Amino acid sequence: MIQTDILIIGAGPTGLFTVFEAGLLQLKCHLIDALPQPGGQCAEIYPKKPIYDIPAYPEILAGDLVDRLMEQIRPFNPGFTLGERAETLEKQEDGQFVVTTNRGTRHKAPVVVIAGGLGSFEPRKPQIDNLADFEDRGVSYMVRDPEVFRDKKVVIAGGGDSALDWSIFLADVAAEVSLVHRRNEFRGALDSVEKASALAAAGKIRLYTEAQVTRLYGDAHLEAVVVSYNDQERGESYVEADHFIPLFGLSPKLGPIGDWGLEIERNAIKVNNAYDYQTNIPGVYAIGDVNTYPGKLKLILSGFHEAAVMCQSAYQVVNPGKRYVMKYTTVGGVTGFDGSKKEAKKEVIQAIA
Amino acid sequence: MIQTDILIIGAGPTGLFTVFEAGLLQLKCHLIDALPQPGGQCAEIYPKKPIYDIPAYPEILAGDLVDRLMEQIRPFNPGFTLGERAETLEKQEDGQFVVTTNRGTRHKAPVVVIAGGLGSFEPRKPQIDNLADFEDRGVSYMVRDPEVFRDKKVVIAGGGDSALDWSIFLADVAAEVSLVHRRNEFRGALDSVEKASALAAAGKIRLYTEAQVTRLYGDAHLEAVVVSYNDQERGESYVEADHFIPLFGLSPKLGPIGDWGLEIERNAIKVNNAYDYQTNIPGVYAIGDVNTYPGKLKLILSGFHEAAVMCQSAYQVVNPGKRYVMKYTTVGGVTGFDGSKKEAKKEVIQAIA
Ligand SMILES: Cc1cc2nc3c(=O)[nH]c(=O)nc-3n(C[C@H](O)[C@H](O)[C@H](O)COP(=O)(O)OP(=O)(O)OC[C@H]3O[C@@H](n4cnc5c(N)ncnc54)[C@H](O)[C@@H]3O)c2cc1C
Ligand SMILES: Cc1cc2nc3c(=O)[nH]c(=O)nc-3n(C[C@H](O)[C@H](O)[C@H](O)COP(=O)(O)OP(=O)(O)OC[C@H]3O[C@@H](n4cnc5c(N)ncnc54)[C@H](O)[C@@H]3O)c2cc1C
Repeated sequence: MIQTDILIIGAGPTGLFTVFEAGLLQLKCHLIDALPQPGGQCAEIYPKKPIYDIPAYPEILAGDLVDRLMEQIRPFNPGFTLGERAETLEKQEDGQFVVTTNRGTRHKAPVVVIAGGLGSFEPRKPQIDNLADFEDRGVSYMVRDPEVFRDKKVVIAGGGDSALDWSIFLADVAAEVSLVHRRNEFRGALDSVEKASALAAAGKIRLYTEAQVTRLYGDAHLEAVVVSYNDQERGESYVEADHFIPLFGLSPKLGPIGDWGLEIERNAIKVNNAYDYQTNIPGVYAIGDVNTYPGKLKLILSGFHEAAVMCQSAYQVVNPGKRYVMKYTTVGGVTGFDGSKKEAKKEVIQAIA
Repeated sequence: MIQTDILIIGAGPTGLFTVFEAGLLQLKCHLIDALPQPGGQCAEIYPKKPIYDIPAYPEILAGDLVDRLMEQIRPFNPGFTLGERAETLEKQEDGQFVVTTNRGTRHKAPVVVIAGGLGSFEPRKPQIDNLADFEDRGVSYMVRDPEVFRDKKVVIAGGGDSALDWSIFLADVAAEVSLVHRRNEFRGALDSVEKASALAAAGKIRLYTEAQVTRLYGDAHLEAVVVSYNDQERGESYVEADHFIPLFGLSPKLGPIGDWGLEIERNAIKVNNAYDYQTNIPGVYAIGDVNTYPGKLKLILSGFHEAAVMCQSAYQVVNPGKRYVMKYTTVGGVTGFDGSKKEAKKEVIQAIA
């Protein structure tokens, strides 16, 4: 059982910044995310695209925003449960909550913060009859740990950035990489398209375009896939494969959180207004894209503000009756759980010769 | 009469970021500030100190934060009335507001946003009997335009960063610079103390320490000041002076805004909660440090959020009945009033050779 002060569901920008605001109040955080990496929509949907409305950043790539947030929260050593979906929320007799994931990992905390954005990112799955039979036995919808594929035969399906980028990356790791795409054209960042092109020309990626994976073969584990061309006259190929990774994008689904007894309005969790973003379950908060209140804007900067306000309230839940006197970071500095300390240089008081 | 869409009182971080959010909605802004420079507390009180809780900035100097905000809003060409205090607010028959400053500058707009922070920064004045007689006739409490002092004899009083920095700066501009300070020790950033020291040693700044200016002489305009030493045995010096600049810091005062018929609670303006930060006067909003509502935090990141939310509501006041469809900056880009356009690179769609 993982025990923490604030359990955050969702490691998007809102969840990440919560770790910082909580840390200023000396509260420890642990994050759960269905994705294998932190950053939420910014990391999953548009890491290489610029955002223009982050205050004091005239321009910043979404992926860089996530990197900066990770750097900012590092002193507060957050824990992460990645690649797992928070499935159930149970209130304990001691007043704390236990959250269990789809893989059975259990987390306990007096405060639960849902920073779930548009929902848990779930893979779009291709229509293949026996696909489910091979889940966890050779089929995966995201790459959690690339080492799993070392010296294996890997078939990747998809035509976007993820399919391109993982084909490129695994070309150096796996024994064989095949990339299967329904169309002839790929859609991605220029450098990804160019790199994949060069690797295909060098024979390091085997390319099947205008084709799709239609069947899976194997016994205890996946052994091969069948690739069928759109043009039936070109027929089918039987491709040996230890792993099949369909990368057709992830789409967010509110999912299990919808059954936790929270008030839901148009796919979002209702919270009390600015006051502290608490839900109808005391001790459970909702911030960022996942919440709704009159005037709500689904903007990153709003998630940041909501995180700061929410942490003040969470402090009272974790430390009942204790008074917290807020100090500006400039004045009080930032003391990390890792022993680090940042503070402003003192002014010099000196006579002029 | 200056006409604009949104008239912002206060050019602190909150007022500045409002220009950006308004610009995204194609609304033009004009800012009034009592200080000669934008940036509010960040620029006036702690420009050289680090802030640690600006989201995605593990550390940023307050002055750099202001610079970044100025860069971010540049495409939206805001107007500025600096060094003037907003004095009166009058509602016109056409429903718009007219705001007049202490210097008589008039501004008209359908929306007024008070981003006045802790209040208008007003100079702390030394106790000198005939000081008021020379205001605007040789005595100034801030430097609006350094060129005014070119080839003039200038006496500066004070022992902090402003007094040091302006003495250093004007040493190159003015005919003579004298720096008068009650104590022997100065309090400032290390490099300011060192530079002033070097200029004093080189005779470019005349130094009077453990002394104060006690009398002013002149006819139509200031001609000289009397500097008295703390130690009466050292007596007095008569120093010729075209200008006397007492720099004892500025302290914020809610001031005239307190008389505009707004609901005030503990020196702050009450606004409706998260909804849109409107005050009891429709069309007048209050955001940033100057407002109060349940759960309010006086943090820069909260001012940013409040600005974004407020602008949505202001849009309806400026464009009644018009529907605005919000687009992410990443998706819609940013189109400046100066003709500039920022947008994300389109994805490449390309066959792999
Ligand atoms: C193309 C695009 C462009 C955008 N441009 C801008 C812009 O210019 N400016 C701007 O401010 N915003 C922009 N946005 C919106 C911005 O990305 C979101 O507002 C922001 O990501 C919300 O952050 P969040 O942390 O609240 O949620 P998210 O980023 O959605 O993160 C939520 C995370 O929670 C996880 N999660 C949810 N439920 C569970 C569960 N049960 N178990 C485990 N994990 C779970 C999800 O997997 C996800 O990783 C854009 C969005 C897109 C898609
Ligand atoms: C030493 C110090 C350290 C701080 N550290 C942090 C920190 O680490 N993190 C953080 O988030 N915050 C910090 N703050 C607080 C932060 O600076 C404020 O929250 C922020 O400046 C508020 O911005 P604002 O734009 O709302 O108001 P302000 O910055 O106060 O600006 C308001 C402006 O309005 C002008 N004004 C007011 N009335 C009038 C009028 N009638 N006419 C003309 N002009 C008027 C004033 O002159 C002023 O320039 C710190 C503050 C101080 C003093």
